[in-house]
Amino acid sequence: MQLESYQIADHNNSLRERHQRKLAYWTEEVANAEAVIGKLIDFQIAIPSWALGTGGTRFGRFAGGGEPRSLEEKLADIGLLHALNQSSGAISLHIPWDIPSDPEAIKQLATQYSIRFDAMNSNTFQDQPGQPLSYKFGSLQHVDPAVRQQAIEHNIDVIRHGLALGSDSLTVWLSDGSSFPGQLNFRKAFDRTLDSLQAIYQALPDDWKMLVEYKAYEPNFYSTTIGDWGSSLLYATKLGPKAYTLVDLGHHLPNANIEQIVAILLNEKKLGGFHFNDSKYGDDDLTTGSVKPYQLFLIFNELVDGLDARGLNHATSLGWMIDASHNVKDPLEDLLQSVEAIQLAYAQALLVDRAALEEARETNDVVRAQEILQEAFRTDVRPLVAEARLRAGGALNPLALFRQLDTRQKLIGERGTKTIATGL
Amino acid sequence: MQLESYQIADHNNSLRERHQRKLAYWTEEVANAEAVIGKLIDFQIAIPSWALGTGGTRFGRFAGGGEPRSLEEKLADIGLLHALNQSSGAISLHIPWDIPSDPEAIKQLATQYSIRFDAMNSNTFQDQPGQPLSYKFGSLQHVDPAVRQQAIEHNIDVIRHGLALGSDSLTVWLSDGSSFPGQLNFRKAFDRTLDSLQAIYQALPDDWKMLVEYKAYEPNFYSTTIGDWGSSLLYATKLGPKAYTLVDLGHHLPNANIEQIVAILLNEKKLGGFHFNDSKYGDDDLTTGSVKPYQLFLIFNELVDGLDARGLNHATSLGWMIDASHNVKDPLEDLLQSVEAIQLAYAQALLVDRAALEEARETNDVVRAQEILQEAFRTDVRPLVAEARLRAGGALNPLALFRQLDTRQKLIGERGTKTIATGL
Amino acid sequence: MQLESYQIADHNNSLRERHQRKLAYWTEEVANAEAVIGKLIDFQIAIPSWALGTGGTRFGRFAGGGEPRSLEEKLADIGLLHALNQSSGAISLHIPWDIPSDPEAIKQLATQYSIRFDAMNSNTFQDQPGQPLSYKFGSLQHVDPAVRQQAIEHNIDVIRHGLALGSDSLTVWLSDGSSFPGQLNFRKAFDRTLDSLQAIYQALPDDWKMLVEYKAYEPNFYSTTIGDWGSSLLYATKLGPKAYTLVDLGHHLPNANIEQIVAILLNEKKLGGFHFNDSKYGDDDLTTGSVKPYQLFLIFNELVDGLDARGLNHATSLGWMIDASHNVKDPLEDLLQSVEAIQLAYAQALLVDRAALEEARETNDVVRAQEILQEAFRTDVRPLVAEARLRAGGALNPLALFRQLDTRQKLIGERGTKTIATGL
Amino acid sequence: MQLESYQIADHNNSLRERHQRKLAYWTEEVANAEAVIGKLIDFQIAIPSWALGTGGTRFGRFAGGGEPRSLEEKLADIGLLHALNQSSGAISLHIPWDIPSDPEAIKQLATQYSIRFDAMNSNTFQDQPGQPLSYKFGSLQHVDPAVRQQAIEHNIDVIRHGLALGSDSLTVWLSDGSSFPGQLNFRKAFDRTLDSLQAIYQALPDDWKMLVEYKAYEPNFYSTTIGDWGSSLLYATKLGPKAYTLVDLGHHLPNANIEQIVAILLNEKKLGGFHFNDSKYGDDDLTTGSVKPYQLFLIFNELVDGLDARGLNHATSLGWMIDASHNVKDPLEDLLQSVEAIQLAYAQALLVDRAALEEARETNDVVRAQEILQEAFRTDVRPLVAEARLRAGGALNPLALFRQLDTRQKLIGERGTKTIATGL
Repeated sequence: MQLESYQIADHNNSLRERHQRKLAYWTEEVANAEAVIGKLIDFQIAIPSWALGTGGTRFGRFAGGGEPRSLEEKLADIGLLHALNQSSGAISLHIPWDIPSDPEAIKQLATQYSIRFDAMNSNTFQDQPGQPLSYKFGSLQHVDPAVRQQAIEHNIDVIRHGLALGSDSLTVWLSDGSSFPGQLNFRKAFDRTLDSLQAIYQALPDDWKMLVEYKAYEPNFYSTTIGDWGSSLLYATKLGPKAYTLVDLGHHLPNANIEQIVAILLNEKKLGGFHFNDSKYGDDDLTTGSVKPYQLFLIFNELVDGLDARGLNHATSLGWMIDASHNVKDPLEDLLQSVEAIQLAYAQALLVDRAALEEARETNDVVRAQEILQEAFRTDVRPLVAEARLRAGGALNPLALFRQLDTRQKLIGERGTKTIATGL
Repeated sequence: MQLESYQIADHNNSLRERHQRKLAYWTEEVANAEAVIGKLIDFQIAIPSWALGTGGTRFGRFAGGGEPRSLEEKLADIGLLHALNQSSGAISLHIPWDIPSDPEAIKQLATQYSIRFDAMNSNTFQDQPGQPLSYKFGSLQHVDPAVRQQAIEHNIDVIRHGLALGSDSLTVWLSDGSSFPGQLNFRKAFDRTLDSLQAIYQALPDDWKMLVEYKAYEPNFYSTTIGDWGSSLLYATKLGPKAYTLVDLGHHLPNANIEQIVAILLNEKKLGGFHFNDSKYGDDDLTTGSVKPYQLFLIFNELVDGLDARGLNHATSLGWMIDASHNVKDPLEDLLQSVEAIQLAYAQALLVDRAALEEARETNDVVRAQEILQEAFRTDVRPLVAEARLRAGGALNPLALFRQLDTRQKLIGERGTKTIATGL
Repeated sequence: MQLESYQIADHNNSLRERHQRKLAYWTEEVANAEAVIGKLIDFQIAIPSWALGTGGTRFGRFAGGGEPRSLEEKLADIGLLHALNQSSGAISLHIPWDIPSDPEAIKQLATQYSIRFDAMNSNTFQDQPGQPLSYKFGSLQHVDPAVRQQAIEHNIDVIRHGLALGSDSLTVWLSDGSSFPGQLNFRKAFDRTLDSLQAIYQALPDDWKMLVEYKAYEPNFYSTTIGDWGSSLLYATKLGPKAYTLVDLGHHLPNANIEQIVAILLNEKKLGGFHFNDSKYGDDDLTTGSVKPYQLFLIFNELVDGLDARGLNHATSLGWMIDASHNVKDPLEDLLQSVEAIQLAYAQALLVDRAALEEARETNDVVRAQEILQEAFRTDVRPLVAEARLRAGGALNPLALFRQLDTRQKLIGERGTKTIATGL
Repeated sequence: MQLESYQIADHNNSLRERHQRKLAYWTEEVANAEAVIGKLIDFQIAIPSWALGTGGTRFGRFAGGGEPRSLEEKLADIGLLHALNQSSGAISLHIPWDIPSDPEAIKQLATQYSIRFDAMNSNTFQDQPGQPLSYKFGSLQHVDPAVRQQAIEHNIDVIRHGLALGSDSLTVWLSDGSSFPGQLNFRKAFDRTLDSLQAIYQALPDDWKMLVEYKAYEPNFYSTTIGDWGSSLLYATKLGPKAYTLVDLGHHLPNANIEQIVAILLNEKKLGGFHFNDSKYGDDDLTTGSVKPYQLFLIFNELVDGLDARGLNHATSLGWMIDASHNVKDPLEDLLQSVEAIQLAYAQALLVDRAALEEARETNDVVRAQEILQEAFRTDVRPLVAEARLRAGGALNPLALFRQLDTRQKLIGERGTKTIATGL
């Protein structure tokens, strides 16, 4: 299903008057409204290829219909999202689920949708049919050098696929770890993992980044070899200048201060990328902003502050990606909600009066510092985000238009009700 | 694969001398050693039918071989465990995975293995092939009365299957809840769930128990309708005298004091059963006793104390069951480890000098109260547990014998390497 | 220091034009703006007498200056807050810290400030100078009946003080519990505590409420005898119709779903009162709304929904109180921030389109249900809250006026820099 | 109160027969019993000077009697402990609480008790009377360079005191952080703290260690500037070879895998010291081994393994110290319990069959790896620990002897009931 430009235009016309009234008010209220809108237009969030279908848990999966059955249909879905919000112009592929049979054709298709190829993701947390050696007890950490070599080669293969498509980064998420006390020699597992990562690093093109993701637990339930930012930073530092830490919001122990982690990593020049989602308990992979929107804002506050401190471009200096699981929502609607929540948090962070904030901090005026952040967070920036979409050619209300057009029903009509997209 | 009695005898003979030396020492050290051994012999832990195969997570599953392909083979596996440890003489079935085609034949088979049928488990957390209505948004809590009715009838059906086999309790674990703020009207969901449970309760035979299980989160990640012991007790109280709370060790928020919950529920005469496992992060479903053995002991300390206070039989007053997931271990070996850990904790709880403990408590002698518990916990009760097995006809070292006999290889020989047992 | 009405008038005049512009916009945007403003005017949040001074931790306390040295000065401080925001017209006293030497004079003073006496708080978590028996090992749970009796009598004494002042409820927060496994017989501690509470309950006037507060941990670090809502509800149910559960936001295990607890308690007609604060780790007692404003909104969403379902008055059906510790902020400024955050959350909850929400729930439209809540939360209700203050005679920006008037400096001038208010 | 050697001899004689019987059994059971006993004799755990009095929480403190009123009496208390268990031959001082008026005399006194001076502790988390500038908003991180300088000089002063007494390490625990979002510029706070630490580092003698302690939260409740091992390691690495990370068991987020952290730090050659205690919720500072003894064993398992891998002496390569708060127990009894729990865990770790464990790991035999650890943990090593005490001249049962001798009553007789030791 392709979105026609007249459909967006009609939708926007129907809402324009109301939007203009709001916008007029808020551009008067917000001093830097124009600058915010400009930055929002530039800001693109990559969609992972595996988040276009219904997700599930170990207890089950309740599939929806009309899910993409091929890489081409995944691109079509993201093309649809991007047409609606003009903020999802990138896809993050997962190998082996998304190996293109004809990379050039896929590249052209992506170009038609104005989608670029963000970070490539390898998979050594599952066994694939026909795979000679199993990852049951780890991959890059495995005691058997042959298993490590298989995993290294897989990652190099992923780089190769990425090169063919124009990607420039590799995300390594390792589920490697242990489920029981005693299972693993932590020190040796660390060293073996480092060796393996170094082998992959050597195959990394000079203009690529390697993003080393960490996670506190799951699917291993006693230890994870790259378990926190401290570990990831150790690896990234030992690997070299092309290696960075990737932060996934759901990958922390309870109560972790993620915004501080972000600030420290930016200060160390080692923050490489971001996986957005939300959670209440663990790696729940819920819609971004659906549970802790203030935390999301505080994280963006550090991102903006830290990138500005080094004069870095917000949109291009880090990899921005959603990584969520859509268990009870339409995946595309869920992604529209996530992208909007990210844009709102980003816009609010751009509203923070940084000079006043630093002044308050310099005088230990805690009350005022809090007021300054809350002033930004309590501001209703939805009209600014909508205006950014409008100017970029998107829809004033992407979710409403998605529903008005009966999009899911049309996708089901095209693809059937029993489709299952690859992914989690 | 059937264990021959000479195999156990040979094994025991080879270890007998060493065992006798240890036993002699410990029966001298432990005043009530004989009584402990007697109680251990009586104590049986039910094995859930779904724990005989390899478990997995949403990220994948690394199957082993030789897993049971039918209810008959599941009984054979538990028969094997029971022959080895003489403490696993019960099975807990799960419907629809374990619907017997010929209940009488299954009953006879179970009798041959000296296995009785413990609590029956219903399943409304997954959709089964051909099921008219989906549980995607809940079952007993569902907004649609037709879905609720379907789930009620399923539970009544489970009771029927249980009656045919000689079970006398129904465990209701509901995954019902919500994954996002706003999704659920908590009050209405509570009331609908209560109505549904009441309908099932009315179909419950007079000599049956209904065990209402609670869980803090997963697979729903915002709220669970029966989310903690407080909720479960509310339901059980409103339902009536046949309804009880079931405690699963992994179903709590971080840092919960489970032993206190157990004590309160026993005090309220509403503790009905127990699911054993262990965990570090969430419902990790690890081998019982592998992560927090002292907590397991403290729980048994309350169980023994609370049951004794009401003069109840330890072995028969509550439902005792393992509920774990074997992701990286041989399931049968894992279960042998769990049963042994449970027996050790139970034996240690039986060693606690309760008169002295109460005396210390009455004088607020915190140091001594701690010493009394630690005295019991630090005691090496393995010889007592081994002796109980020996007297009951089991193996001195079940795990060692399991390996000596090449059991898994034989099961693979019989059943193949690609078997997949039903379950999680 | 007394606030003069011209000072508020001048302040409001200086901000009026800007406020009117905002208000005009938002009263057009928000359909029920007038009703919201009306409800905000009625809504009063009690200030605890112990929160007017600098708080501390076990590691230290960094006192500020100008803190109230007497009950009269505490009333003056709350009078000041109330003059500024017209939403703090109640005080919650703590005995023995606030025993009035002349209750009638105190009542008159309170009336002058338009302050009523909210719930009375007893204290059995500390030993007072000259107290015959120690609460080191508990109070209402204590093994020694004489200690229990002392604690019972203290609570009855607190009721007596409250009667003299016109209060109509007693909050019982027990720190009773244990710090080590073995220390306490949980069952007996439960029963003794129940007996003690029953003795207090019998002394409770018929038109009073007893609010049974729960807390997961601290200052006891192994168990707390009234440790969660399930325990509190058990006690309140056994006690009778005058007993209710009190929820303090900081008194839960990590990740608890407090809004669901609130909904269940309202459904059971057993929610009695609320202690507002915020936290990231434990009972951090931070400024309400400073860490998890969306959670605060979700809680108010349930409060509004649950009270409306029974046709109850929002302002008067429950006890609303702040309970926070001001370690690094001016206590009065901190309280102004907390009250405003509560009002914002309440106002947003009043904006929720409940008919649409129920419709979304009835059709399992999770996406829309989330949108409806977010629509309310993302609305900038500050102009409505300001308007409510304005109409009630308060300041458009209480915090700004507090600072413009150099209030703290004046209080220091009156009271000195070395004052230490009683409290935590 | 001084312990006479005949008192220990009498005590030991009364228990000797029973002890010998146990020992005979266990030295036969445990292959390396002699080696374990030898290592236990060498292993000394430092007692912090502030842990000799009753601790408290922000809610109160229930003092005991007979607490040490001076540094001399603190040494006497530790001398008593050491005489009893021969394993507490070190004290860790806290400045300014323990500034010796006559260092030489104190050194001689310590020598008489066979006590050496372990790490010195600075205090910038409290304001001392007469201190020019306040640490309310931090010390080494403070925005005001004058406050930072004051804190730097204090630390250098602490080094000076330590030099005079023969200490060779400085522990820096900073409570610096923030309690509210917005309060702190994380990046600048990091950099300022690093600058300050570098100034202290430069004053550190060449043969000293600087131990950089981390803590997740408390007394700051939003962020802590040295908040986790990753931060601490970053600081220690930037500081240089004399700087190390110090691990306190209670300073982590819920569910943290501390043993893995220990292994990584040892692998990085940056683990410097250890603070022992136990906890269920936060930094509860309970008796070591009273809540999670298996975790304590797993930590020692990593310590032994990691130190052995580098051929390091267990007793001298790291700083071993208890850091606990005795709120409801006699402080000296509590410390005796802690030291014993540490010795038991250490002894059990020494029992682990490391060759077999590595073999199990190399073959991914998770079941066997778990069995090997449990085999060690389930062994009753109390007779070995008692024998080590006996050979070193201590008491077979220090706690029993402490009570038999009415020690606390005698201390109260000497010092009075109203003493308050400095400390938390």
